[in-house]
This record gives sequence, C-alpha cells and structure tokens, in this order.
Amino acid sequence: MANSQETIRILRRLLASGMTARAQRLLSRMRPADRGPVLSGLTPPEIRTVIDLLFQQQRAASTLRELPPELLPQIFDAVGDERLAQVIARLELDDMVEFVEWLDEERRGPVVALLPETQRAELRKAELYPPSSAGRVMVTRFLALDEGVTAQEAIEAIREAGDDAEAILYLYVVDEKQQLRGVVPLRRLVAASPARRCGELMVQDPVSVRAEADQEDVAQIVARYNLLAVPVVDGENRILGVITVDDVIDVITEEATEDMYHLAGLSDEDRVFSPAHHAIRKRLPWMLLNLGATFLLAWVIGLFERTLEQIVTLAFFMPVVAGMGGNGGIQALTVITRAIALGELEFSSGLRAIRKEVSVAIVIGIVTGAVSGAFAYLWQGSPYLGVVLFATMIITMAIAGIMGAAVPLILKALGQDPAVGSGVFVTTITDLFGFSAFLGIGTLLFDRLLI
Amino acid sequence: MANSQETIRILRRLLASGMTARAQRLLSRMRPADRGPVLSGLTPPEIRTVIDLLFQQQRAASTLRELPPELLPQIFDAVGDERLAQVIARLELDDMVEFVEWLDEERRGPVVALLPETQRAELRKAELYPPSSAGRVMVTRFLALDEGVTAQEAIEAIREAGDDAEAILYLYVVDEKQQLRGVVPLRRLVAASPARRCGELMVQDPVSVRAEADQEDVAQIVARYNLLAVPVVDGENRILGVITVDDVIDVITEEATEDMYHLAGLSDEDRVFSPAHHAIRKRLPWMLLNLGATFLLAWVIGLFERTLEQIVTLAFFMPVVAGMGGNGGIQALTVITRAIALGELEFSSGLRAIRKEVSVAIVIGIVTGAVSGAFAYLWQGSPYLGVVLFATMIITMAIAGIMGAAVPLILKALGQDPAVGSGVFVTTITDLFGFSAFLGIGTLLFDRLLI
Repeated sequence: MANSQETIRILRRLLASGMTARAQRLLSRMRPADRGPVLSGLTPPEIRTVIDLLFQQQRAASTLRELPPELLPQIFDAVGDERLAQVIARLELDDMVEFVEWLDEERRGPVVALLPETQRAELRKAELYPPSSAGRVMVTRFLALDEGVTAQEAIEAIREAGDDAEAILYLYVVDEKQQLRGVVPLRRLVAASPARRCGELMVQDPVSVRAEADQEDVAQIVARYNLLAVPVVDGENRILGVITVDDVIDVITEEATEDMYHLAGLSDEDRVFSPAHHAIRKRLPWMLLNLGATFLLAWVIGLFERTLEQIVTLAFFMPVVAGMGGNGGIQALTVITRAIALGELEFSSGLRAIRKEVSVAIVIGIVTGAVSGAFAYLWQGSPYLGVVLFATMIITMAIAGIMGAAVPLILKALGQDPAVGSGVFVTTITDLFGFSAFLGIGTLLFDRLLI
Repeated sequence: MANSQETIRILRRLLASGMTARAQRLLSRMRPADRGPVLSGLTPPEIRTVIDLLFQQQRAASTLRELPPELLPQIFDAVGDERLAQVIARLELDDMVEFVEWLDEERRGPVVALLPETQRAELRKAELYPPSSAGRVMVTRFLALDEGVTAQEAIEAIREAGDDAEAILYLYVVDEKQQLRGVVPLRRLVAASPARRCGELMVQDPVSVRAEADQEDVAQIVARYNLLAVPVVDGENRILGVITVDDVIDVITEEATEDMYHLAGLSDEDRVFSPAHHAIRKRLPWMLLNLGATFLLAWVIGLFERTLEQIVTLAFFMPVVAGMGGNGGIQALTVITRAIALGELEFSSGLRAIRKEVSVAIVIGIVTGAVSGAFAYLWQGSPYLGVVLFATMIITMAIAGIMGAAVPLILKALGQDPAVGSGVFVTTITDLFGFSAFLGIGTLLFDRLLI
C-alpha cells in the first residue's frame, strides 16, 4: 500500500503533464491486482483517462476484475455505458454477474442491452439461481471429456483450448448424458503415461456442489477437501460450471468480514474508506435501535427509583453488572457464531453447546461474583452489598451464557443470519435481567443495606 | 455433520461387536477429511482402535493431516509415542511443524527423537524461522528446473516425480545459483508445444515471499494475485519451499477466527466443543481484567455520589451513555481492525481513517443525542436533563470514534496484534469519559436539574 501511494503520485504527475505514453508504460508494468488500489486513489477525470489507456492496451477488463468490489461504483461512475458493456462482455460469468449487481439500478438495463446476445443469455440463466448461490459464482468454461479419451488426447484438447487452458485445473469426465462421472487432476494427467484413458485416471465419485447451494457452503467444501476447483451440477448430476479456489478465498474473506460486521451492527458496505455520509446513513438506524434498547434499560432502572434514592451506592455498581454480563454474552455469542460459520456446529449438537456455555458462564459468575462482592464489601463496608453483587453476578452470567449461545442457534434455525442483530439483542436482554436482579435483590435486602 | 453423527453410531457398534473388517471397510470408503469429525466423536479407547485400523491401511497420516488442529491433543493422548512418530515421519514439513507444536511439551522431545534423521534436520531448520512465518508453513517438495529444459522434458520430470507429482502446480525455473528466475504454471506447460523451453514459457519476475514473512501477509499475497501456490525464498532469492493455496485458506480462516476472538477477549483455543474447564481457565483472566475495568468505572461514578444522591434520575440514563458509547467504539474498532487484517489500511493512511471515524461518530452523536435528549425531557419533564444527555452523547461518541480507530492502529504500529485487548480498552476509556461527562455536566447544572 505504501508503494501504491508512491505510484499514485507519479501517475498523477504524468497524467497532469500529458505524458500519456509514460503513464501507459507505468500501468503496463504493474500486475493487474496492483492497479486496483492505484485506481481508487485517483479523481473521476483521472480514472476516466486511465481506463481509456487501459482500454488501448486491452487491459481494462483484467484490471477491473481484480478490484475489490466496494471500489466498483466509483469506477463505474467515471465510465460510459458503452465502455462498461465492452469490459463486462470480456469477463467470465461470475465476474459479469458481480459487475451487473454492483451497477446502479437505472444503468443496469441500458448496459446489459449493449452486451452481445450470448452474454445476455448467460446472465439471464445465472439470475435464475438464488443470490449468493453456486450458480452465480461459477465460471462456465471447463473441459468435459469422455472416459475413453487417452491422456495424450486430453493434453491435445487442452492445447486446442488455447487461452482458456490457463484456467484448467481439472478435466471433467462425463457420460453421454453429460452426467459427471469423475475428475482428472491436471497434475495426474501430466504424470500419466500417454496411452492411459481418462476413465482409469479419474477420481470416481468426485466432490461436487449443486447450483442452488449457498456459496458459503461451497467454500466450506472446497476448504475441507483441499480442492483447487469444484464442479457445479444440476439436479441430474450434469455439469454446469466450475468454482475455482481463488473465488472461494474471496467468499471466505467476505463472509468473515460480514460476520464480524454483523456482530457489531455494521453493514457490509461500510468500509474503512467509504465516504463518511455513507457510513452515517448505514450506521444510524442501528444506533437508533440500540438507543431504544438502552432506554428500555433506563425505564427498568427507573422502576427502582425508591431503592436508588435511599441507597445510591447501588448505582456505582451498575456498570460492573452491565460490563461483565455484556462481555460474557459477547464471548458465548462469538464462539457459537464462529462455530456455525465454520460448519463445526449443527442444530443437532446445539443443546450440548448451550449447556457448555452456560456452565462456563456460571463458574465464571461464581468467581467474579466472589471477587467483586469482596471488593464491594471492602470499599463500601457493607457485607450485604457484597452478597447482592455476588448473587447478581451469577444470575447475570448465566443469562449471558444462555442468550449468547441460544440466540445465534435460534436465528440459524429460523433461516436467518446468526450474527445480524444478535449482539445488541444479547447484551440488552442480559442487562435487563442483570439490572433487575441487582436492583431487585437490593430492594429485598433494603433494610440491611440501609445502614 | 449430521452424516458424521450417523457414521459415528455405526462405527461404534461395529467396534463394540468386534467386527473390525467391516469397520475397516467403512473407514476406507470415507474421504480423509471426513474421518476427522468421526474420530473426534469417539472415546479414547475407540480412537486407539481406529488409529490402529487406519495404520494397517496406511491411512493414519492422511487422516490426521486433515484433522482440525484443535482436535489433535485428544487424538495424541490416545496414541503411543512410536505410532505418533511414524505418522509424523510421513507428513510434509508444514504438517510436521504443526503436529510437533500441538504436542504436550514433555512428549515433544521423546517423539522427535524417534523420527528419522532427515526429518529431524528439517524440523530443526524450520524452527529457526519465527512462529507463524512462511518458513514454518511451507512444504519443501517442489520441482525446480533450468531455463533450457523443454516442455516435454519437464513433463517427463513430473512423471518421474511419481507420488510427489500430485502436489505440483507450478514448475520453478532457477539459475545455477538456485535463484528463482520464473514460474511455469502446469496448465501452461501442458498447453505448450513440446519443444518450447521453460525459459520462454515462464512468467518472469514471479511473486514470491521471504521465509521470514508472516503467514498472514503471505495469505494476503496469494489471495490478491489469485495464486495456487507461492514460492518461498531466502535473502538471496534462492527457492526454499512452496506454500500452497489450501494452507492459505486455513491461514485466512484461522486469522479471521483469531480477530473475532481477540475482539471478544477469547483465546484461539477456546472452541465450541473444547472442554468447559479449558474454556473457564482461558476466559477467567480476561474476565477478571474486565472486572477491574468496571470497578474503575464504579469508582468514577462514586466521585459524583453527592450529585446522584440528589438527582437519582441521572442513574437511569447511565446505561444509555455506556451502551451507545460502547457500541460506537466497537463499530469503529471493527472497521479498522478488519481493514488492517485485509491489508487495506497502513499506518500512513491511518490519520485519514481516524478523521473519518470521528466525523461519523460526531454526526451520529448529534442525532442520537437530540433524540435521547428529547425523550428524556418528555419522560422526566426536565429540559436540562435533555441538554445534559445531548451534550454527553456527542462527547461520548467522539471519544468512542477516536479510541475505536486509534487503538488498533497504535497497537499495530507497536508491532502488537491490533485486536487483542482493544475491545475492553476502548469501551472502558469511552465509558470513563462518558460517565465523567454525563455526571460532570449534571453536577454543573445541579441547581437547574434539582426541580
């Protein structure tokens, strides 16, 4: 990134002084993936010029394909519909789908209309699959051969594929109905003696995914079986396309960001350098929801006004109750959400996970309750205050453990994202119980505390 | 996972009734990666039997290699030193290093002593590199050829490599000093006419990483350039090994888990089904630290005892201040930590990121401050209470934005993990300022509030 700052400075100077030939040389020496960060540092007119230069070098599509998707709108704004259609027409299906999804809705129609008919047809087909499914992230160029083909013939088929060959990692063996029978890794094909047949070389019963499968599940499968690519099939096991490992890495990274973001109540598109007004618009609704939750807590505390008026010391310890309960809840929530995301936890073993989190939380509640009770006693001189804090801590931590473990599992069982909104929900419920327990027990022991 | 529950049940029944031949057949029909979840569901004596069966089939190493690392200690406990050494001796260097790292310290010496000398030497060399560096996660089997070698000769070299060939994705072209000159993707080699030389086919100036590089940076490079493997070189650009994309996926998944865990104050090893006593031991120190932080807050509130005694209503709104500040801080923290992890943010652009987070936080503070001030006024009838809440919210959110953005950047600049401990630190500081501002302004407007 430090390098790209430097490159941006040089490129701008070259553009400003009209030295396009040198700018072009600079651009051509960069790897496609390195051009993205540079593009994002330029002004819209500069972007337009650079895209023009890249076009002249036939490098626009390969550059834009490598851009982090959140930078796309900025680039799209600087490029006309026709240019954009030319770029999109050169992309693989998965990138085409992604680009069209990131286009402003009003531009989508006109840009797609400018695409060649074959591409339009492919797009239409991909859009039949659910969002984020395998059918939308697969590429449709692959090599499918008959069992009887020899290794030598297969190698020749790869040679004929020309440019497309660069994308080949596996050969797919299909029967006369195009049903997937096996997979020959390229490495095995190369190592085999030329006369061997694909039917002998292939891995039988290969791992495959359905076109309707969620991309997150596909990523888990590729990661689990250490694949370089996974074939996508229809309901009759006919091969439709392939998902490659580089796209799987993007999915894994994206899903991890999503989970972290959702736990904090952030929207995926709220990135470090997205404009401030954008971040404000995305975060405000969530913060207002959170505000409502905290006002609910204020109302509960208000129910104990009489107690608090007499024993103001109780107010000191409210952040102790809230802080510990909140933390305990977030810990359980994080462990469970992550386990769901990694496929380590299904609903069937959910009860076991909840039991574990609750017992952990209770033990921690007992220990921290004893410590905080002792401290409160030493500080304020009231053993009863210590008792109130001790009892509260155990109750609060138990609730935190239950809520933190159960909420994501229940959301998952309801077909929802287990992370969305669960952070604020878990901490609010925990605090509600925590404050009620603390001030309730305090009210019960009112006379004892009133010394 | 549902399937593996079923398989576990069948396998247990076969083992209990001594039907080892059928158990063996069942095991042999499973993919190596599917045996891991099954193993983890068995008792130690059952594990021992299954490992024995896998040994007879030469499948123990391939099975254990695919296990999620957190299951290893459980399996290791059930296997003797000699068996374990036999398994480890068959692994690639990266897996050897990982297995030895997961061994109990007292077993490490004896088990390593049982390894063949070549493996011991490799391990010793790997341990010279820093933990989590490329030198420890690379494999050392790769094919390095001279520029003059033809495509046909290269293919023959792959055939001779036999078993090892399965791991080959790229050929590495080196000069007489073993310095890396270029890379030939296997796909390009296959597509090339047999007489072409590697020197013409190779990608020049290939992406490579230094052996000392952190595995997280390596993963970013592989993801960014869509590589299937990246060569690892020493200070003189001599090739030492290769890191493949399947290991990179593990690193990315692991690092994402780590970041989420660290933000919540969890240790990496605290997984959903690790034993409860283990989780308690790992979480307690953190929770006690958190307890100390909340007591600091209690002490600060205690400073305002006189104010609170007279205007107990202020106590109702303390959770509003803490809840909003805490959330704002965690949002900024999450955006910045994730951007650091994805390499989107360097220290040089840090100030820009902090500025953005602070302006976002201030605007959100103004809006939520106005809403909560109005609500407090309507509820409690005191316009001054509304003013106190409005002013507090802006101050608290601004502090939350500064701390959430700056703390991870400072930790990163100090060479620390930006996520470790930053959650509790950011929320504690924010709450400290928030409560002080709230009760301080309340004290200043004491007479106005006292109606």
